[in-house]
Amino acid sequence: MLLEALYHVPRDKWAYAYDTETIHLRVRTKRNDVDCVVALTGDKYDWDPTYYEIMMEKAASDDMFDYWEAAVRPKYKRLCYTFRISAGSENIYLLDNGVHQECPQPPNHYYEFPYIHSIDLFTVPDWAKDAVFYQIMTERFAKGDPTIDPEGTEEWGGIPKLDNFFGGDLLGVLNHLDDLQELGINAIYFTPLFLSPSNHKYDIVDYKKVDPHFGSNQLLKQLVAECHKKGIRVMLDAVFNHCSDKFPPFQDVLEKGEYSVYKDWFHMNSFPAEIIDGIPTYDTFGFFGNMPKFNTANPEVKSYLLEVAEYWIKEIKVDGWRLDVANEVDHHFWRDFRKVVKNANPEAYIVGEVWSDSLTWLLGDQFDSVMNYPFSGTVLEFFNGGMNGVTFGHRIGALLMRYPQQTNEVVFNLLGSHDTPRLLTCVGEDKRRLKLAVVFLFTFMGTPCIYYGDEIGLSGNQDPDCRKCMEWEEEKQDRELYNFYRGMIALRKKNKALREGRFRILQAHESNSCIVYERADTVSHFTIWMNNGSEPRTLSHPMETDDWLDAMTGHPVVPQDGMMNISLDPYGYQILCRSLE
Amino acid sequence: MLLEALYHVPRDKWAYAYDTETIHLRVRTKRNDVDCVVALTGDKYDWDPTYYEIMMEKAASDDMFDYWEAAVRPKYKRLCYTFRISAGSENIYLLDNGVHQECPQPPNHYYEFPYIHSIDLFTVPDWAKDAVFYQIMTERFAKGDPTIDPEGTEEWGGIPKLDNFFGGDLLGVLNHLDDLQELGINAIYFTPLFLSPSNHKYDIVDYKKVDPHFGSNQLLKQLVAECHKKGIRVMLDAVFNHCSDKFPPFQDVLEKGEYSVYKDWFHMNSFPAEIIDGIPTYDTFGFFGNMPKFNTANPEVKSYLLEVAEYWIKEIKVDGWRLDVANEVDHHFWRDFRKVVKNANPEAYIVGEVWSDSLTWLLGDQFDSVMNYPFSGTVLEFFNGGMNGVTFGHRIGALLMRYPQQTNEVVFNLLGSHDTPRLLTCVGEDKRRLKLAVVFLFTFMGTPCIYYGDEIGLSGNQDPDCRKCMEWEEEKQDRELYNFYRGMIALRKKNKALREGRFRILQAHESNSCIVYERADTVSHFTIWMNNGSEPRTLSHPMETDDWLDAMTGHPVVPQDGMMNISLDPYGYQILCRSLE
Repeated sequence: MLLEALYHVPRDKWAYAYDTETIHLRVRTKRNDVDCVVALTGDKYDWDPTYYEIMMEKAASDDMFDYWEAAVRPKYKRLCYTFRISAGSENIYLLDNGVHQECPQPPNHYYEFPYIHSIDLFTVPDWAKDAVFYQIMTERFAKGDPTIDPEGTEEWGGIPKLDNFFGGDLLGVLNHLDDLQELGINAIYFTPLFLSPSNHKYDIVDYKKVDPHFGSNQLLKQLVAECHKKGIRVMLDAVFNHCSDKFPPFQDVLEKGEYSVYKDWFHMNSFPAEIIDGIPTYDTFGFFGNMPKFNTANPEVKSYLLEVAEYWIKEIKVDGWRLDVANEVDHHFWRDFRKVVKNANPEAYIVGEVWSDSLTWLLGDQFDSVMNYPFSGTVLEFFNGGMNGVTFGHRIGALLMRYPQQTNEVVFNLLGSHDTPRLLTCVGEDKRRLKLAVVFLFTFMGTPCIYYGDEIGLSGNQDPDCRKCMEWEEEKQDRELYNFYRGMIALRKKNKALREGRFRILQAHESNSCIVYERADTVSHFTIWMNNGSEPRTLSHPMETDDWLDAMTGHPVVPQDGMMNISLDPYGYQILCRSLE
Repeated sequence: MLLEALYHVPRDKWAYAYDTETIHLRVRTKRNDVDCVVALTGDKYDWDPTYYEIMMEKAASDDMFDYWEAAVRPKYKRLCYTFRISAGSENIYLLDNGVHQECPQPPNHYYEFPYIHSIDLFTVPDWAKDAVFYQIMTERFAKGDPTIDPEGTEEWGGIPKLDNFFGGDLLGVLNHLDDLQELGINAIYFTPLFLSPSNHKYDIVDYKKVDPHFGSNQLLKQLVAECHKKGIRVMLDAVFNHCSDKFPPFQDVLEKGEYSVYKDWFHMNSFPAEIIDGIPTYDTFGFFGNMPKFNTANPEVKSYLLEVAEYWIKEIKVDGWRLDVANEVDHHFWRDFRKVVKNANPEAYIVGEVWSDSLTWLLGDQFDSVMNYPFSGTVLEFFNGGMNGVTFGHRIGALLMRYPQQTNEVVFNLLGSHDTPRLLTCVGEDKRRLKLAVVFLFTFMGTPCIYYGDEIGLSGNQDPDCRKCMEWEEEKQDRELYNFYRGMIALRKKNKALREGRFRILQAHESNSCIVYERADTVSHFTIWMNNGSEPRTLSHPMETDDWLDAMTGHPVVPQDGMMNISLDPYGYQILCRSLE
């Protein structure tokens, strides 16, 4: 047994309360090195009567490690535990002070989860588990009211540039709500809507005012209400790391320098506020002088921004916040942000923009979720032929082991956004590959999000090209693709197993990129078959029952002699399901 | 290179801000498996001009791993980084998504410390780095005012029982402040002082009132003021996990059951509050029915206890809180506790009672320090002959790598307390071993604490035997031991190198338990030589300079041909020092 590979700490994603009665434990071992792991548990104040052994399940594997998981329900909210790890005839015990060959006397040096406190529990909104998001850049989604177009607005459908406008607005969105309902999505994520000189509006001048080129606060409120009537939730974009240099307090600093009453609203390194050799004398987003960074530790700033966070939830009734550049804002701020937001609406959904490991924010006191760019990267690489099936399984396994289960259930899975090239472009405009990626998205754990227009075949490279105007002329839309998306959304919404069921890879090979995996809960059981290769191929896997249907057509698909054989076109897929009720 | 042994995460003790300009990074490798580790760092928004390589130092080793450390000072508060790990001609790169053989294009998949926020900085009180604590159980330290003795008080010096009284009080402490100053300690930790029926007072009835058998709030205030005049800080014991069943709100619950307005002050599982087959119907400390657990998530309870925390600091001027059963109280409570306490006195010291891995509470938002029982365990085992020198070095290395540097500087190192057998008893009444343990305590990093009476030779087994009355008759005191303690305290207080200097083991063997280690800063350099064995032995180690003095006598100790040879009695030690100024 490779002892150096063993890992457990009695905290964060390795030991956490899942609900008021259940603690999840995880242990890491070298891959294929260990036969079984058993958690030996009890109450440290009364060990013998509370002693309980629980067999751990291998929940995931990555390139190097296996991850074992168990859900423990301690009788008195307190848990004390060690792990017995077995390989062949060898048993070792993992404790707070290292590896032991013999099981030490409990509870000395055992790990502890001292007490399950409801208040410390990491809870995420239930609706987010069932949500299918649709991301809208309002400026590019639909024109509604031409009288509020910005000066110099260009004709709809022109070439997007970093600084041009096409006149999309909130009325445009409102006019298309039926279309969105028809597509089947049940949540919208809006990139920023507040007053800002840019087309993307990530440099905000007034946090309490919808940009007049988009509409008004009243119109947004009406739009949110209409969405709610249709069962659609609305998430806005909170740009709290920085503002526009046109934001009045920063203008005051520009004007009055160190005599400005707002000088502590920002991170001023020297006065005057200016840019010297490309480097601002104040901290910014990146090195962009027009995006000064807020000093979120300043109580005035904090109170201003938290009031903003509360206002849009309480007054306008939005259902969540996506947090721009969330990792560069302080933790004290986010902790109080969560309190304010969840107090205003306990079901509000909080999604941070963090591109790398985000566990720090996902322990229950800050975010519910993050934009899962590592998921996009892995999925796109795989369906572009960048790795074999086994490697893909390992990469997916590593992603699942990054965060606690709560986050895995609502992590914001996307295949592209306003900050990346378009999905269709990422897969070399090969719709077959695109579909495989989308099938995976909609049959995997987490909260999926579609970037506006991906569903009708918009393409585009990195910003500004990925921010083209939405295509509304049906004859210019890819309706076949649209119907595919519509079908996948419907399938996911209809089947809880696809949202919250167990995920397991049934088949993956090092020699090719085909995979078979399953999702299952107590109601239904899905198997998804993917030929992620350029030759036709028949995938075979043993199936114990013969009650499988094609999930899209409802036709029976019958195994032969206990073996299911699925013949697939190049880059083809098939989704099978059976009822367990 | 053993890849499974590599470990880094961009958070907690592996990557943290040490001050507003410095980030500490740590990486783990298999022991003796790697030649060097280099951190490749930069600002992700402008990589090339900010690129900087920093060689990491091997900071510690344990049984299985080496730990490498570097202090990085990013130019713009943002840090993006990877590690190049080299063994022979092999180089690998450790990134957010795993191990790479080639260095990927920065900053993609590099680790991030997104921004150093002052407000998130983990700061600990400076005075705690220089403190030598003395733990007092007031009931057993000194009698002052016999008129306030509890009923049935027994004669001073009798046999301690779980429930008897000897009449120690705060006037007794006040009368002996000169003695404590003479000993040299500069901080007192008092076990609980508030109204309580027991002798230990861990079951509190009134959190705002000094127990009348100890004195009054006014007397404590006077005592604290006297201490401060003598340069002695005072830390009290906060028992916020549970109270006494005589605490009036709990009495109300006992009386009125579910109709009590205080029912949500506790964790009631059913009514009435009673004990069935030894198990209370409400959560308690352990299963003790007389110690009902507070519901610290209840805003009323929280506000009551936080007001208590503030009162003793603001009104009575105490300098810190030791937190009883700290791990069983919720994290939200402790976060707000820290804010209230540090707001009342930014230099207040917060020490949690947590017996196992405590990192969760030591990330800047909760405690400064914890009672370091794992330190006691390791030191006592070593000086009782339970491990060889190499193992001891590894165990000490593991302790140093448990927490960020801030905590290492003020972790509450003790060799015994009211909850353990006495130090002298732990070492089989062998004063030579006791002295080795105490020399180690006073020449190691962290905040040392002496349990009252250890310095004059009190012995005793587990509670109640470890809670004997202090011996004040000089002829019954071990004055030789007292003078040894006094010398060690003075030496530590005089030399910052012993408090905050670099710690390094110079010599340790698997074949015996002798060790040589050093402490050094820019002012002075210490080497400590210990023959932790039953035979006389000469320890030799190369020394580059010949300016060494015996730290206790001031006599020169000269190496021969570059080799220092120190002859030591069984369980003997010698401390050498030289000035670097």
